[in-house]
Amino acid sequence: MSVAEKIADKIIHTRYGDLPLEAVHWAKVAILDTLGVTVAGSREPLSQIVREVLSEEGGRPECTVLGLDIKTSIQNAAWANGVLSHALDYDDISNTLGGHPSVPVLPPLLALAERRAFAGKEFLLAYAVGFETECKIGRGVNFVHYDRGWHPTSTLGIFGAAAASAKLLGLSVTDCSRALAMAASMASGIKANFGTMTKPLHIGQAARNGLLATLLASKGFSASLEAFEARQGFCNVYNGEGQYRLEAMTERWGEPFDLVQPGVAIKQYPCCGSTHSAIDALLSLVRTQDLKPEDVVCVEAAIHVRRLVHVNRPAPKSGLEGKFSLQYCLARVLLERQVKLSHFRDDTIDEPQVRKIMEKIKVAPHPRMEWKSTEHFGAEVSVELRNGEKIKALQERAVGRGPEIPLPQSLLKAKFLDCWSQVFPRATGAEVIDKVETLETLADTRTLFQSFSAAGQEKRERKAR
Amino acid sequence: MSVAEKIADKIIHTRYGDLPLEAVHWAKVAILDTLGVTVAGSREPLSQIVREVLSEEGGRPECTVLGLDIKTSIQNAAWANGVLSHALDYDDISNTLGGHPSVPVLPPLLALAERRAFAGKEFLLAYAVGFETECKIGRGVNFVHYDRGWHPTSTLGIFGAAAASAKLLGLSVTDCSRALAMAASMASGIKANFGTMTKPLHIGQAARNGLLATLLASKGFSASLEAFEARQGFCNVYNGEGQYRLEAMTERWGEPFDLVQPGVAIKQYPCCGSTHSAIDALLSLVRTQDLKPEDVVCVEAAIHVRRLVHVNRPAPKSGLEGKFSLQYCLARVLLERQVKLSHFRDDTIDEPQVRKIMEKIKVAPHPRMEWKSTEHFGAEVSVELRNGEKIKALQERAVGRGPEIPLPQSLLKAKFLDCWSQVFPRATGAEVIDKVETLETLADTRTLFQSFSAAGQEKRERKAR
Repeated sequence: MSVAEKIADKIIHTRYGDLPLEAVHWAKVAILDTLGVTVAGSREPLSQIVREVLSEEGGRPECTVLGLDIKTSIQNAAWANGVLSHALDYDDISNTLGGHPSVPVLPPLLALAERRAFAGKEFLLAYAVGFETECKIGRGVNFVHYDRGWHPTSTLGIFGAAAASAKLLGLSVTDCSRALAMAASMASGIKANFGTMTKPLHIGQAARNGLLATLLASKGFSASLEAFEARQGFCNVYNGEGQYRLEAMTERWGEPFDLVQPGVAIKQYPCCGSTHSAIDALLSLVRTQDLKPEDVVCVEAAIHVRRLVHVNRPAPKSGLEGKFSLQYCLARVLLERQVKLSHFRDDTIDEPQVRKIMEKIKVAPHPRMEWKSTEHFGAEVSVELRNGEKIKALQERAVGRGPEIPLPQSLLKAKFLDCWSQVFPRATGAEVIDKVETLETLADTRTLFQSFSAAGQEKRERKAR
Repeated sequence: MSVAEKIADKIIHTRYGDLPLEAVHWAKVAILDTLGVTVAGSREPLSQIVREVLSEEGGRPECTVLGLDIKTSIQNAAWANGVLSHALDYDDISNTLGGHPSVPVLPPLLALAERRAFAGKEFLLAYAVGFETECKIGRGVNFVHYDRGWHPTSTLGIFGAAAASAKLLGLSVTDCSRALAMAASMASGIKANFGTMTKPLHIGQAARNGLLATLLASKGFSASLEAFEARQGFCNVYNGEGQYRLEAMTERWGEPFDLVQPGVAIKQYPCCGSTHSAIDALLSLVRTQDLKPEDVVCVEAAIHVRRLVHVNRPAPKSGLEGKFSLQYCLARVLLERQVKLSHFRDDTIDEPQVRKIMEKIKVAPHPRMEWKSTEHFGAEVSVELRNGEKIKALQERAVGRGPEIPLPQSLLKAKFLDCWSQVFPRATGAEVIDKVETLETLADTRTLFQSFSAAGQEKRERKAR
C-alpha cells in the first residue's frame, strides 16, 4: 500500500468505539472553543471583506457562516468559517502539528453536517480522525516542515480537512486516498504572510480545498496514490529529500490519539500566548489576596527573554498592539480580574483608568530561571503592597496549555460566552454549550445550527425592540 | 520597493501602447487556441465531475463555463474553465515558464469580462501582462523550481492569474502587490499528480486563487509586501535559499515581452509533443508526393531516444494511450493526412483500417543525430514505396513550437474548429475566430460570450429538429 492508502486505511477503519473517553472529551472541548472563536472572529475587520466576496459569489444558501447571518454554499461556508475561525488567533494549539488543529477541520464538517443528518457520534469521530491525520502527518514532516517556512495549520491542516470530510461522508479507502493525494497538490501557506489577514486566509483555503478534494474524490476524480512518497511528491517537494519519516505518519495511529496525548492547548486569553503565564500568576495573587488596585504599589513580572522581546510594550497604540503588551494585560488583571475580548479594541486600549495602573507594572527578563530552549513557558510575578508586604507567584505553564493543566470547564464556558456575546445575546449561548457538551447523544447535528438560527433571531428581535 | 511592489509597478504601469504588434498578434493566437482547447476539454470525463461540483455549489449565474452550457459565479467559472482548459494537455507552452502560460491567465479574465464592459484592448493588455508576470517570475526561479517538483503552470501561473485580474480591474500598485503576496500563500501543485485529473485541477486552483487574491486585495485585505524575498517567503520556501534570482523577475520586463521572444508554442496535434516533429515530417511527404496508403511499403521514423521511450507504443489500448503512440499517430497521417481529436477516443483507436496501416510503421531512436540535451525536438522519417523508391524528410522542430516556425493561421483555425466542433456546430465557430482576430477593435468583450450563447442556442435547436 502507498502512504496515502495506509493513512486512508486508518481513517476509514477507525470507529467511534476506538475513541477513548478522553478523546471524546477533548474533541468536545476543542469544538466548543472553535465555535466560540469563530463567532467572535466574525467581528474582526476582515469579515466585512469575506462578506463582500461571498455576496459576489452567491451560492446555494445551505450552510451557515458563523456570526455573519449568511447562508452560502458548502465550499464557500467552509472557506468563510475557516477564515473567521483564525481571525483572532485565539483558537486551540497542537505542538505536534506546530499549529492550530481545529480550524482547518471543523469548518468543512460544519458545512457537511448542515446539509444532511449525521449523528453526533459520527461528527465527533470525523473530527477526531481529522485531528489525528494532520498531527500524524505532522509527526512525519515536523519540525523541518515548520522551520522551512510552511504554515502547518494550512499545509498539514488541509489533510485534516480532507480526512474529516471523507470520514463523515463514508468514503472508501481508495477514494479517501485520492482525496489525500489531491490535497497534497493544494497545500499552501507561507509564514511570510504572518501578521496580516492572509494568515487566517490560509485556514479558509485549507478548509475549502480539503473539502473540495474529498468531494472530487467521492465523485471519481483521479489522483496519484503515491502523491506523498513519489520522487516529486509532497514529502520531497515540501520538506526535501530525506527530511521526513513516512512511517511516523501511521505507526502510532490512535496509540495514543494526539488529541489525548500530547493533547490540545486552549488559549484562555485573547492576547499573545507569551503573556498568559504571567496573567495566570497575577490573577491567582489578586484573587487569593483579594487585591484592589489601590493596595498595590508595584507589580514586577519576569518571563523568558525570548518571549519578552515581543510583549514588552509599555505604550500600546491599538487594540492589536495591546495583545502584545504584557504591561497592558497585567494592568487589566489588576483592574478587572479578567482579560477579555473587549479589552483589545481601539476604543478601549486608551481608557484612563487602565493607563494609570499600567504605570505600576514593570516587566523584565527572568534573571535566575534557567529554562532550556523548550522550557520557556513560565512566569514569576511579585507584587509590592502599600502595607510594605511583598508577595510572589510562580506559574510554570499557562492554564489550558495541555491536558496536565487543563482549563477548568467553567473558564472554557466563560471564554465561549465572551466570544459568543460579541455577536449574539449572551444567554443564547447556553444552548450551544449544552449541545456540544452532549454531542455524542445528538441524533442529528443539524440541531446545532438551529441554535445558531435561534440566537440570530433573538438578536434581530432585540434590535427591533 | 519590495519585489512584489516592483512587479506590481511593472504590471500597473504597462500600457497598451507599450505592446509591440507581435505581442498583440501572439496574444490573439494564444487566446483563440486556449478558447478552443477549453471547449474541447469540456468533453473529457472530468467535466462531468466539474459539472456536479458546480451544481452542488450554485452561485450567481454570471459567468460562462465554456462548452458546458452552465453559467456560474465568478470564482467558480475561473476554476471550472481552468480545469477544462488543461484537460486535454493540448494548450500552449512557454519554455520560460516551464509550462502552459495561457490556461491560468485566461479563465479569470473571461470571468471578469463577462460581468462588465471592457474594451478588447484592455483585455489583450491584461492577458499580455499576466503572461509576462508568470514568465518573468519564472526567470527568477526556474529551472530549480521546475526540477524540485513544482508544477509551474500552477505555482507560477497563479501570479499570472492575479496580475491579469489586477490589470483588468485597474488596481493600484499597492493593491496589486498585496494580490501577488497573497498568491504567494496560495501557490500549489506537485508533479507527482501528473497523469491524473489532478494535473488539470492544478490549473483550476491557480486560476481561481489568483483571481481571489486580486478580489480580496481590491477590497483591502492585507498581506505582506515582502512575501517574495522574506526569510520565510515564496522564494526561500519554494526554491530554497540562494536558489533564485530576484532581479530577474523585473529587470527585462517587456524587453522583450516573453510572449514575443522566446514566444509561445502552439500544439498542432492533440497528442504527446514528442510525436509532433515526426507527424510534420511524414505529413509533408504524404502531401508533396500525394502518397496513398497503398503506395507505401514501410515508414521508418527516428526521434531522440529520450523522447522515444514514452511514445514507442505499437499497440495502444485506449484513446489516451493512442496519444503516446508514435506508430498510431503516423498511421493516421498516412490514412487521413491529419491528426485530430476524434482519433483519440476509445471507440476509434481500434479501427481496423488504421490498425492495418500501423503494421507498416517502424520507430527507432535516431542513430546519427547528435542533439545536445536541449536540442531533441527533431525527427527523420523515411518512406519505402511500392515502386522501390525511398524518400526522406527531416523536421528539426515541430510546426508551431515557437515564433521562428509559427503555425500558419489556417492550421491554427483548423485546430480551433476541430476543438469547437466537439461541442458546437462547426459553422458557429467562425464568429469566435473573427472576434478574437479583431479583439483590439472590440468596444465590449462581452460580445464574445454572445457568440458562445448563440452557438449553444444553435446546438439546442439542431438537437430539437
